[in-house]
Amino acid sequence: MAASYSSIKRIALTPGEPAGIGPDLCIQLAQQTLPCELIVIGSPELLAQRAQQLGLAVQINTLNNQSPRKCQTAGNLTVLPVALAAPVQCGKLNPANSHYVLKTITEATQGCLNNTFDAMVTAPVHKAVINDAGFAFSGHTEFIADITGGNPVMMLETPGLRVALVTIHLPLAQVPQAITASRLRTVIGVLHHDLQTRFNIANPRILVCGLNPHAGEGGHLGREEIDIIEPILNDFRRQGMDIQGPLPADTLFTPHYLESADAVLAMYHDQGLPVLKHKGFGQAVNITLGLPIIRTSVDHGTALTLAGTGKADLGSLQYALHTALMMASHT
Amino acid sequence: MAASYSSIKRIALTPGEPAGIGPDLCIQLAQQTLPCELIVIGSPELLAQRAQQLGLAVQINTLNNQSPRKCQTAGNLTVLPVALAAPVQCGKLNPANSHYVLKTITEATQGCLNNTFDAMVTAPVHKAVINDAGFAFSGHTEFIADITGGNPVMMLETPGLRVALVTIHLPLAQVPQAITASRLRTVIGVLHHDLQTRFNIANPRILVCGLNPHAGEGGHLGREEIDIIEPILNDFRRQGMDIQGPLPADTLFTPHYLESADAVLAMYHDQGLPVLKHKGFGQAVNITLGLPIIRTSVDHGTALTLAGTGKADLGSLQYALHTALMMASHT
Repeated sequence: MAASYSSIKRIALTPGEPAGIGPDLCIQLAQQTLPCELIVIGSPELLAQRAQQLGLAVQINTLNNQSPRKCQTAGNLTVLPVALAAPVQCGKLNPANSHYVLKTITEATQGCLNNTFDAMVTAPVHKAVINDAGFAFSGHTEFIADITGGNPVMMLETPGLRVALVTIHLPLAQVPQAITASRLRTVIGVLHHDLQTRFNIANPRILVCGLNPHAGEGGHLGREEIDIIEPILNDFRRQGMDIQGPLPADTLFTPHYLESADAVLAMYHDQGLPVLKHKGFGQAVNITLGLPIIRTSVDHGTALTLAGTGKADLGSLQYALHTALMMASHT
Repeated sequence: MAASYSSIKRIALTPGEPAGIGPDLCIQLAQQTLPCELIVIGSPELLAQRAQQLGLAVQINTLNNQSPRKCQTAGNLTVLPVALAAPVQCGKLNPANSHYVLKTITEATQGCLNNTFDAMVTAPVHKAVINDAGFAFSGHTEFIADITGGNPVMMLETPGLRVALVTIHLPLAQVPQAITASRLRTVIGVLHHDLQTRFNIANPRILVCGLNPHAGEGGHLGREEIDIIEPILNDFRRQGMDIQGPLPADTLFTPHYLESADAVLAMYHDQGLPVLKHKGFGQAVNITLGLPIIRTSVDHGTALTLAGTGKADLGSLQYALHTALMMASHT
């Protein structure tokens, strides 16, 4: 039976930094038939040029919002056009195109807010060149949340493991003071809520890391577990939530614990992500929880030296798209 | 051809906390034939009692230092006796036996220093009960180094990955200030030297993590990489050492990097050990580098509830013994 009109999800894809592998990944993805409509938001000229460089045939069409939705078919690519400011050379960053990059993200975000799109997937941007162009840009997640509002929480997923973070891009020396009762309450609330609503998990089981080695070892290696983390977890447990911890990070990522969990909450970046990226190399997705829209992203960078070579690995983008579609189908 | 007298290595094994699984592991190991002489330092009565509880037959002999060395054979166990102060009940900690525990470690250490033993392997102790007994004991490693001198550096190994640590059991808030030029110089020097001498690696390839997420991202997420880590690594590189870094911890533990490395140096406990224990669950060894003796240890705790049940997993102790023997054969 053919899918009915309304059941076809429409996913926006932003190609990110034009000199990086983002456009390559869009062209590679366009070689596939997919169970959703895919709309790339970017420059049709750039995409056509990159297709030619890669030696891949693609028919580029412009989005017509009046047409019924239809699933992506191999060899076609539907584009919502955004104009570049300057020509693009693979691997050469150009601040002149930073406004273009931000505009593609803005269009995708606003399209999700007004239900033109059911979700958005982002390819990597280059933070430094956007800052060089004079925009105060600290990252995709923050930029999108400034438009949508909400309490963004970063979660990475690979098959068999989800890791959410209490703090993200902070110098290590600033992490302990950022682990506050208020922040923990917000993050755990968002994580639990979104696992229910976006991942269809009725009673999410969450494992929470301690901040200190051995989760503080009863106060001998730091008191944040006793003074801050444990009381908040107890509050959530009293509400009936299935939350274990604080647990030592070096015992928590083992089969005994992980088999009985839906997500791990790490206190900071390098406590949780090395394991996830080790386990999920090439097949990991970055998901922003806590927003009124669905947004997933690849877990890799712009890989400037690979742009135009055909060597970019589509794995993470495919997984990001699959995850966005799965989340959209639960909403 | 039978191994000649002098080529048989003699390894000391301390059973650790008597109420935990350490004695069980000794009895389980005694069921095997091994390519070395194994000397358990502990109470023969405790070992006989635990063998009975486990339903495993073992002939316990007392070490005779005048006899020629001979390899461990299945069903036998050679013991250097140390007397308990109080009877042992599985799972019940008793501070009265803490002096016994420390004496077994001291005997093993001194025996390594005077060449009675070629290496020592330690089963887990219970830090809190030793402290309760009035001994200022912060850990096996520190206790042994107090006897031997040296600059102890903790390294964990599992097949395919070695992770050494610049700092170990510190509250997270104290980590940044502990990453000093002097400490880094010492740890990298020890790691490089011991990979050469104990692991027979002519030109060790070492990957060094940054302290901050994304290794500081060019100073945007902390300056320790620029101000402290990078200059020290450059010094070592100028001496011809193969040292990469500082690298982001969440990209370093991926195949591209690990395949070309002999060891990873992490700045702190929860940056390096979650990956290692995830990858090496049940088959990891803790190695103390920087000492004048060879010491390895299991990577797990006393597992009080499993003592006497027969459910203790011998994997880590076997790996610790195998590693000690390999290291001793290179020395």
